[in-house]
Amino acid sequence: PIPGEHFGLQESEFKPVLKNGDIATRNLALSLDPYMRPRMDAEKSYIDCFKIGEPLIAGGVAEVIESQNPRFPVGTIIEGYVGWELYTHLTEANIQDHRILHGARESSIPLSSYLGVLGMPGMTAYSSLIEVGAPKAGETIFISAAAGAVGQLVGQMAKRLGLRVVGSVGSDEKVEFLLKDLHFDAAFNYKRGNILENLRKAAPEGIDIYYENVGGEQLEAVLEQMNDHGRIVACGMISQYNTKNAYGVRNLLQVVIKRIRFEGFLVEELYAKYGEQFDKEVGSWFANKEIKYVEDVAHGIENAMDAFVGMLKGKNFGKQVVKIADL
Amino acid sequence: PIPGEHFGLQESEFKPVLKNGDIATRNLALSLDPYMRPRMDAEKSYIDCFKIGEPLIAGGVAEVIESQNPRFPVGTIIEGYVGWELYTHLTEANIQDHRILHGARESSIPLSSYLGVLGMPGMTAYSSLIEVGAPKAGETIFISAAAGAVGQLVGQMAKRLGLRVVGSVGSDEKVEFLLKDLHFDAAFNYKRGNILENLRKAAPEGIDIYYENVGGEQLEAVLEQMNDHGRIVACGMISQYNTKNAYGVRNLLQVVIKRIRFEGFLVEELYAKYGEQFDKEVGSWFANKEIKYVEDVAHGIENAMDAFVGMLKGKNFGKQVVKIADL
Ligand SMILES: NC(=O)c1ccc[n+]([C@@H]2O[C@H](COP(=O)([O-])OP(=O)(O)OC[C@H]3O[C@@H](n4cnc5c(N)ncnc54)[C@H](OP(=O)(O)O)[C@@H]3O)[C@@H](O)[C@H]2O)c1
Ligand SMILES: NC(=O)c1ccc[n+]([C@@H]2O[C@H](COP(=O)([O-])OP(=O)(O)OC[C@H]3O[C@@H](n4cnc5c(N)ncnc54)[C@H](OP(=O)(O)O)[C@@H]3O)[C@@H](O)[C@H]2O)c1
Repeated sequence: PIPGEHFGLQESEFKPVLKNGDIATRNLALSLDPYMRPRMDAEKSYIDCFKIGEPLIAGGVAEVIESQNPRFPVGTIIEGYVGWELYTHLTEANIQDHRILHGARESSIPLSSYLGVLGMPGMTAYSSLIEVGAPKAGETIFISAAAGAVGQLVGQMAKRLGLRVVGSVGSDEKVEFLLKDLHFDAAFNYKRGNILENLRKAAPEGIDIYYENVGGEQLEAVLEQMNDHGRIVACGMISQYNTKNAYGVRNLLQVVIKRIRFEGFLVEELYAKYGEQFDKEVGSWFANKEIKYVEDVAHGIENAMDAFVGMLKGKNFGKQVVKIADL
Repeated sequence: PIPGEHFGLQESEFKPVLKNGDIATRNLALSLDPYMRPRMDAEKSYIDCFKIGEPLIAGGVAEVIESQNPRFPVGTIIEGYVGWELYTHLTEANIQDHRILHGARESSIPLSSYLGVLGMPGMTAYSSLIEVGAPKAGETIFISAAAGAVGQLVGQMAKRLGLRVVGSVGSDEKVEFLLKDLHFDAAFNYKRGNILENLRKAAPEGIDIYYENVGGEQLEAVLEQMNDHGRIVACGMISQYNTKNAYGVRNLLQVVIKRIRFEGFLVEELYAKYGEQFDKEVGSWFANKEIKYVEDVAHGIENAMDAFVGMLKGKNFGKQVVKIADL
């Protein structure tokens, strides 16, 4: 998508008329995520398409400034879907899943954390690694888009579980980050040289779990280097979101030969099982600085479009958020 | 492979010198199976390559004619790997997994059944449908190569479990067979018309389980028509065995979007868990004519090569066996 052509900035007055159950928010931070790209297509995937002429939707942290809903009194800090805009009118139907960030106002934790390590990407990494990956100490995991919102956490969580952790990223700076800051055991830049050769060098013992964020060429290479009974956690395939030339994977026979389990998931479906455990464990790891989390913060709603397009191309260094306003 | 060019018939004297533990067999019937094709490649997959200059290996039913092994006295009827030949000398190391067909001499069950419905293909269908497919009554299963050794059983077993059963095959006669003889709910010839359109017509409600025997183009079409939380039982991909132009599957993103579990297995690994239950259940269904089983019998070892090549191309109607000798 091209800013100005496929989406643009628009000013309008904010004069919400709240029905019973509605709230109005002042938006503080937005989360920009890869899944928004398929929502810009004409064809529905697992989630509805964005509607032409209406504000885009994003996960966000916001302050309630008007309320006809006793669950969300004025002044409450909440996390959930809002518009890509300064203020949003949310009907009662649209705030069923919003969570209240108790104590966020007083806490030293930056509000954007609730969009990353303590929010959807954190939950994605944590729940799917356990549920789909079934990791065992001593195994090797390979993570693509390893420096991203989800990838950086999967790597650190896998290390905690005693796995050998290998990652791929799209720049040498990100390789450095994985090795030096996150203590990955090996990492490479997938834009340099042959992917399969890099993979063989980085994981000569073979790959037991592939945490799949990217799809296409990397998936094809990984299938060659997987071990018997390997698992592929099909989290996303970002290389296939923003293209009309889908990549054809030619070696799926490896799934049979190696008895691979290649399994998709959606984080929404894992909250019920892992939500509580995630809040407790990851919350305490992060508070105790046992895990790191890097964010890439764009400032001002006017920069959201460029930040989004940049993220799709790998310009983001860590979780992409947009800071809109101070609390 | 071309008979006469890549494999050929050769006469030699059979004068085995048996060491302690060895046996010699007179071979009665051979099983010809798709997995033999990858064994003819130079590169090992999950199983060793055939050795140039030595007889090919096949599952077979045979009579012990000489024995230095008290477990297999002369006259015993056994099932297990033998050569594509009239007589085979089997060392002790090579008969660890051979089973004794008690009562086979007196039984009215044709010996070839132990290579089909009561043998490896039967076990494949039975164990993997349950273990990997996790079928539930009311679901829809789609089976490719549905009239084959494995496919015809998967379909009948799925019907017993209350599923809606849809199959694809490579000829109109096979379509007839599925509908009339096996009571499939729908079936089509994948060589006629567009596969995805045929699939949509045959399973408008979507596919919950894909029993994958074929790979390539059919897999790509099925991914479009799968339901959320569908399972793909990756049994084999015969369209990819005998070609240098592997088919690139372009829509694996569906695995994420639909939370599909796409999982490979090898029947050898399922005997421990399902062997006993298989012998009991499938043995009694077959004896009571509750399931049918069609075999395609070639006569004489000299016809094995053509039968094998024909089977790879779909000339077989049912399980391909070669009858070598009467008991
Ligand atoms: N299943 C779920 O419920 C769920 C939930 C959350 C996220 N996801 C998926 O998880 C994946 C990662 O999401 P995220 O939020 O953590 O994003 P992210 O990694 O923070 O950002 C996207 C990254 O993808 C990489 N990338 C972009 N185009 C690429 C290409 N053609 N080839 C290889 N890498 C490419 C870029 O990193 P480089 O610089 O390294 O190229 C970019 O920084 C996405 O596929 C997303 O859809 C799924
Ligand atoms: N994982 C395991 O442990 C295990 C065990 C046994 C078998 N298998 C696999 O199961 C599959 C079926 O084996 P089977 O013994 O039951 O063989 P089969 O179906 O009796 O014979 C092979 C059939 O494949 C079909 N075929 C051939 N080339 C094709 C192509 N290009 N496109 C579509 N269909 C094609 C033909 O049927 P049409 O006339 O319908 O085209 C042919 O009759 C194979 O892939 C085999 O490797 C796996």
